Amino acid sequence: MCQLLGMNCNTPTDIVFSFEGFRRRGGLTDHHADGFGIGFFEGRGVRLFHDDKPSAHSPVADLIRAYQIKSENVIAHIRKATQGQTSLANTHPFMREMWGEYWLFAHNGHLKNFFPEIGQYYHAVGNTDSERAFCYMLEQLRTRFPERPDTDALFEAVKELTKEIREYGLFNFMMSNGDYLFAHASTLLHYIVRKAPFGEAHLLDDDVSIDFAAVTTPNDKVAVIATLPLTANEQWSQLAVDELVMFYQGDIVRRDRPEPPVYMGTEEGLEIARAVGVSV
Amino acid sequence: MCQLLGMNCNTPTDIVFSFEGFRRRGGLTDHHADGFGIGFFEGRGVRLFHDDKPSAHSPVADLIRAYQIKSENVIAHIRKATQGQTSLANTHPFMREMWGEYWLFAHNGHLKNFFPEIGQYYHAVGNTDSERAFCYMLEQLRTRFPERPDTDALFEAVKELTKEIREYGLFNFMMSNGDYLFAHASTLLHYIVRKAPFGEAHLLDDDVSIDFAAVTTPNDKVAVIATLPLTANEQWSQLAVDELVMFYQGDIVRRDRPEPPVYMGTEEGLEIARAVGVSV
Repeated sequence: MCQLLGMNCNTPTDIVFSFEGFRRRGGLTDHHADGFGIGFFEGRGVRLFHDDKPSAHSPVADLIRAYQIKSENVIAHIRKATQGQTSLANTHPFMREMWGEYWLFAHNGHLKNFFPEIGQYYHAVGNTDSERAFCYMLEQLRTRFPERPDTDALFEAVKELTKEIREYGLFNFMMSNGDYLFAHASTLLHYIVRKAPFGEAHLLDDDVSIDFAAVTTPNDKVAVIATLPLTANEQWSQLAVDELVMFYQGDIVRRDRPEPPVYMGTEEGLEIARAVGVSV
Repeated sequence: MCQLLGMNCNTPTDIVFSFEGFRRRGGLTDHHADGFGIGFFEGRGVRLFHDDKPSAHSPVADLIRAYQIKSENVIAHIRKATQGQTSLANTHPFMREMWGEYWLFAHNGHLKNFFPEIGQYYHAVGNTDSERAFCYMLEQLRTRFPERPDTDALFEAVKELTKEIREYGLFNFMMSNGDYLFAHASTLLHYIVRKAPFGEAHLLDDDVSIDFAAVTTPNDKVAVIATLPLTANEQWSQLAVDELVMFYQGDIVRRDRPEPPVYMGTEEGLEIARAVGVSV
């Protein structure tokens, strides 16, 4: 089972606490043995780390912990290869430039027979369904909008494209341009928005606690999005099946949720992954 | 003075020895205090590290040493900011996808009033002359060739574009798609091709030696390209002013050298940099 982790905040925030729990799932507490990737926006720039070593044992992951990079938008992915060989070119998150901005994308799931026509602007380098989906999404956006459109138009377009692509299979994804972070659930995706008053949190996968009050200011707002909740003593919300949300500065600012919403149980989500032999 | 470092080989090779000498120039033996970047091709993928800390003191540079990444094509850059603010978005090497391949580009120099029309395919994210030059180069190549052309046509096109851009000022650059590595000198650029019989080399900037015979096989061919020679006891060749070369598997396979060639003295090259207040 691949896992996704994202963060969207109103102030540059250190993701180390969440990343520690997340990366433990890469080889210690779970079975993600095919590498990982993480991208941090810093202003308009992106710091991108890919590793084909399991994240629990990766020196790159050690560096991330030691370096305490602060970012307003982060997307990370632990990979269990299901499509395409394990190689650096197939490691999420993928990055492209659109409208003079870098965009990051990570996916877990499996898109069956998803081979869209090769685009004019964006071509996949590796051979995953995920990178093809990202390139297709950007190609359609770029074709439709020569410049970045307003928030409503952007959300509507991503919504339409998401509906189109998810017809091909499981399409849990996160995508960000450094301002917005889109998150879409086919099966399992959870989030939490931490804001004042901040309390203490305890990692599920590790004997580690953090007192957020000590490392934040009262105005901070930090959304963390992950396949499964990372902490034991906080209330995580779940995205409904086929729900798309758009985060901005730590808040959900746009939302497309099917009515009535259906929430997938964790076991059911994991079972679906096992049944089709792919990642959740 | 910014500095460039590149490597092009016929077998995945560890660049740590050269990088150690190079990175020492970032804050210890030279005055590059504005960060550095290095990109490694691994197959079709790219591992990209950027840091806004001086390379001599950077934990990212420490990781690169510890990790001993093997690559057939590497481009690195130590930056002394002269154009644009120091930020991650302005840190070389820059990366874009073209023809389903990642391309890396690093530049030292200064292009005066270089503001080409905004392209259809490639937009700068930061605000450096260097990234604009890279985007312009790709834009023109992509417009001319929907797919990657043959080696001759590619070299001819890069040659023409280089001549066009260098009219705007100092344009020392390296560019690679993971197969080819282009290197162009406006002022100072040196290279060495190491092949059997391998000997011992001694770093200029550091009390470090390496016996290449112990870490290579007889068929290895490794070209290292750098602003200034990195070793004391080897014979480096210099690129002539306005010379463009294309490396492939450790050999120069195409070359465009003005006749008669003019070779710039190191002091003269450094003086030009100082005189215009920009990087060499």
